[in-house]
Amino acid sequence: MTGFVGVADMVRWVARHGAETLMAGMADYIESDFRRWTSFDKTERVASHTPFGVIELMPISDPDVYAFKYVNGHPSNPARGFQTVTAFGMLADVHNGYPVFLSEMTLLTALRTAATSAMVARRLARPDSHVMAMIGAGSQAEFQALAFRGVLGIDRLRVYDVDPSAPDKLVRNLRPHGFEIEVCGSASEAALGADIVTTCTADKTAARVLADTDVAAGMHVNTIGGDCPGKTELDPRILERGPVFVEYAPQTRIEGEIQNVAPDFPVTEFWEVLTGAAAGRTSPEQVTIFDSVGFAIEDYSALRFLRDSVAGTDLSGRIDLVAAPEDPKDLFGMVGAPVPA
Amino acid sequence: MTGFVGVADMVRWVARHGAETLMAGMADYIESDFRRWTSFDKTERVASHTPFGVIELMPISDPDVYAFKYVNGHPSNPARGFQTVTAFGMLADVHNGYPVFLSEMTLLTALRTAATSAMVARRLARPDSHVMAMIGAGSQAEFQALAFRGVLGIDRLRVYDVDPSAPDKLVRNLRPHGFEIEVCGSASEAALGADIVTTCTADKTAARVLADTDVAAGMHVNTIGGDCPGKTELDPRILERGPVFVEYAPQTRIEGEIQNVAPDFPVTEFWEVLTGAAAGRTSPEQVTIFDSVGFAIEDYSALRFLRDSVAGTDLSGRIDLVAAPEDPKDLFGMVGAPVPA
Repeated sequence: MTGFVGVADMVRWVARHGAETLMAGMADYIESDFRRWTSFDKTERVASHTPFGVIELMPISDPDVYAFKYVNGHPSNPARGFQTVTAFGMLADVHNGYPVFLSEMTLLTALRTAATSAMVARRLARPDSHVMAMIGAGSQAEFQALAFRGVLGIDRLRVYDVDPSAPDKLVRNLRPHGFEIEVCGSASEAALGADIVTTCTADKTAARVLADTDVAAGMHVNTIGGDCPGKTELDPRILERGPVFVEYAPQTRIEGEIQNVAPDFPVTEFWEVLTGAAAGRTSPEQVTIFDSVGFAIEDYSALRFLRDSVAGTDLSGRIDLVAAPEDPKDLFGMVGAPVPA
Repeated sequence: MTGFVGVADMVRWVARHGAETLMAGMADYIESDFRRWTSFDKTERVASHTPFGVIELMPISDPDVYAFKYVNGHPSNPARGFQTVTAFGMLADVHNGYPVFLSEMTLLTALRTAATSAMVARRLARPDSHVMAMIGAGSQAEFQALAFRGVLGIDRLRVYDVDPSAPDKLVRNLRPHGFEIEVCGSASEAALGADIVTTCTADKTAARVLADTDVAAGMHVNTIGGDCPGKTELDPRILERGPVFVEYAPQTRIEGEIQNVAPDFPVTEFWEVLTGAAAGRTSPEQVTIFDSVGFAIEDYSALRFLRDSVAGTDLSGRIDLVAAPEDPKDLFGMVGAPVPA
């Protein structure tokens, strides 16, 4: 039987441990997998585009474990009562090809995206960072805030969203968690005095939610919402302000902020910072930019973390997904009884 | 909630209706979807190869419904007590990207592969066909036999396998179903007097399980086992004996029997026969060849047939796979309660 974590179990898992603690643990798993980057077979993701949105399959494999995620992106969904993004994913045993673990990943993707941002910022933001500006207070915002506190100790937020009701939701959700939150009237106001700026907006356009003049010396810019062709967030001049770090350059050139600059614009794959092959931040005055689009290894790490965390607990279910005939060469024997008269 | 058919329900479904009846119905669904071939977005399959085998994701979409199948192929699995191939798959709503139906597909793939063979043979084999030779009596064999009886009325089998115990298994499984079965000592002997020859063997080599001299005038050759690079079954000279029909030419050129002939070897995509755009069999003396590798539309059709068949019955389960927050913009609200002290 294949292990299974459904939505209800996922909610109980997060409630039991707290999103902040889980994302701190998950960040360590992601970092550990990024450090062995070259051991992964990085297959391209497969996208099916329609006028309504996109459905993607994201596979990844190391020599022992294969993972894939199913994920959709439908910008007009919320107006119809659906979520923009839903996801589920799976781990399989490379040695025999059997699925071993299936999980909902709508919530898990939200956790892993924020855990990745925090894992990267731990190396790139100034060590004395305390204040984060958040441009965009949508579905991902609370996860980002808690991951940055769990991993870097960030506890002061400056929040702006074009939808005035969105920061209210964020304040309502995060107040019980003890943040100091200032709601701002513009992105520029939010960025003022921030050590880290996280942009996470949903518009499927080449938007400029952060202006070049909003970026001050020493900032770390964590840009999440530019994640598919034609969908970006930053004034491209910001990319000239300091080194740009990416997950997997071939994918980011198509989907990230750097689609707005030259195809040979220099970037550093972040795993190289972790292994010491490339420099991260080199001075307190430097601006650093993480152009995040989301990469399959992060899903692999998140599934691995979840599987390890729920193993042997009441949160680990089973799903009847793999036929197991007594004789593996006699599949028909499973169904071969004659039709009853 | 997403609809779900697990292995136990699949076994009950087949036992309730009989594989023969189900495959006849499924053949009609596949034919109907092949007739509207051009309405599908035929994304390439994504394969992850390792020394042990391959894991593939096969996506396909029409303007309303998206489907994908996860399937592995590990030739050394049976020796270790595992099946060579396992699979599961899903249907999603293109309009909002939500998964709507998940099913085991190890058994379903066996059914759809045989249903496809029979659907094609219904148009290409001589109408007076009664005898089928089967080279290879492995996991797929019984399904092929029942599909050919359900769709074409074939009731006499001539069986050969390099493993002498395999035909025993086939006879044991099919005897209660009323076939006339002759076990033969060689492929040539099995082919003698047959109207249709089905080759379905597992060796991952350029094998020649059927010789050119085994093929007589008027035969339909249904070749199943040549389905990945380096894995073929026929003496390539057989391909010169009559028109070769394929599912999707770009995929078959890489995976099918025609990888052993010139890249511009003429083939006909079978959907064109159904729509009348191309000729099928044009004389009783002609040899016809179906070079089958398995295509994603067949999985789409099989999932659609299964979903329709189990709808509203006790075989239709539910799986808790898609998070549904009350406010689609407030995902965190699902998990946001503070950690209990």
